[in-house]
Amino acid sequence: MNKNYKHIKVIGFDADDTLWVNETYFRDAELEFAKLMAPYETANKVDQELFKKEMENLPLYGYGIKGFVLSMVEMAVVISNNSVSNETITKILNIGKDMLDAPVELLDGVEDTLKHVSKEYKLIVLTKGDLLDQERKLEKSNLTSYFHHIEVMSDKQEVNYSKVLAHLDIKPSEFLMIGNSLKSDILPLVNIGAEAIHIPFHTTWLHEQVNEQEIKNRAYKTITHLLELKRILN
Amino acid sequence: MNKNYKHIKVIGFDADDTLWVNETYFRDAELEFAKLMAPYETANKVDQELFKKEMENLPLYGYGIKGFVLSMVEMAVVISNNSVSNETITKILNIGKDMLDAPVELLDGVEDTLKHVSKEYKLIVLTKGDLLDQERKLEKSNLTSYFHHIEVMSDKQEVNYSKVLAHLDIKPSEFLMIGNSLKSDILPLVNIGAEAIHIPFHTTWLHEQVNEQEIKNRAYKTITHLLELKRILN
Repeated sequence: MNKNYKHIKVIGFDADDTLWVNETYFRDAELEFAKLMAPYETANKVDQELFKKEMENLPLYGYGIKGFVLSMVEMAVVISNNSVSNETITKILNIGKDMLDAPVELLDGVEDTLKHVSKEYKLIVLTKGDLLDQERKLEKSNLTSYFHHIEVMSDKQEVNYSKVLAHLDIKPSEFLMIGNSLKSDILPLVNIGAEAIHIPFHTTWLHEQVNEQEIKNRAYKTITHLLELKRILN
Repeated sequence: MNKNYKHIKVIGFDADDTLWVNETYFRDAELEFAKLMAPYETANKVDQELFKKEMENLPLYGYGIKGFVLSMVEMAVVISNNSVSNETITKILNIGKDMLDAPVELLDGVEDTLKHVSKEYKLIVLTKGDLLDQERKLEKSNLTSYFHHIEVMSDKQEVNYSKVLAHLDIKPSEFLMIGNSLKSDILPLVNIGAEAIHIPFHTTWLHEQVNEQEIKNRAYKTITHLLELKRILN
């Protein structure tokens, strides 16, 4: 597909795993949690059960580290059959604090790309998750000056995008979204008449995975590296 | 002080304890937590220690129920000297889930007042806390149609207000904020040149309390009930 983007005026960037590393910290935390649960269950089973618990709690807790930690504590009690030690509970809480306090590691080429495309396009960030945590990461990233607006969204479904774009007076037909998650950054945008470019990250949370049927014949582009954006938009 | 508000174009409402009951749920949760900790410490000491822990964790967790629950779990381990039972941990997690799932109880006269003032003024909500939780409460409140914009803020300091008002193209001199917290809803607004009306709620979180020196000679009005707003703005 040879698309052109001459009609685009505003580019939206996802943040986690598009501008900086995120999912890797969650995977590391899950490995750590599985180790703590090793006396009770296999790592594989621990992973599965934690994911189930996260999905069960998602409507109440939403996305982000704090809800993830609360689900780990709850799961530790269940997996250990009410016998997990206070020391292990403390270790789980500390996994969360370390995640919240982690440095922001920009992905390759981010600053260079933003500097280039910000000359011709209005840039915004549309990110999902915990408000304070996302604001803090943006602050640490030193990227805020490239963006006209930063929106932290509680979810990234079509209705959420439509609301944000309407509020910002952006026509979907003039909007291009860039992100790593087909489910959250690409398909909802294509469905509301915007453009989207997918840049896969090496790790995708199970919850963000989509089946082949959903992506069949959808009009979006896939690139392997953010740096390709400069060439595509020229 | 006999003020007039003829120059006001936009009215901002705080949400928790201004539009609906909130602090009461936290006080109830603290009572519940103190009961669970009764085998280890007096209620008074438990309260104090929990507050200290919340303040210590505030930079990392921010405002909202999930951070509050994480601080209770951490404190239970500390207060019990690493001997709190898994059953008690589960009860603490459930306190949080019940809070997140609680119905929204509108304060007296809210709907009547909003209906009246929305005819002449643009109304917005400026609320602090957890994004998903605040959005859910607004949804449950059935009040969203009165508001042109809803902003969930990670904090309510002068700089946060200045950013939001600039983004919404609202001049501070044409803005009136209404809320229950002197620290979060009133003083920062007065300091940036906006108007503010204080409606005390019967309970104020210790963190939101201000000393007399801070409020001396400040130009804001205090009313005892939201229903008075109609008369004041006429």
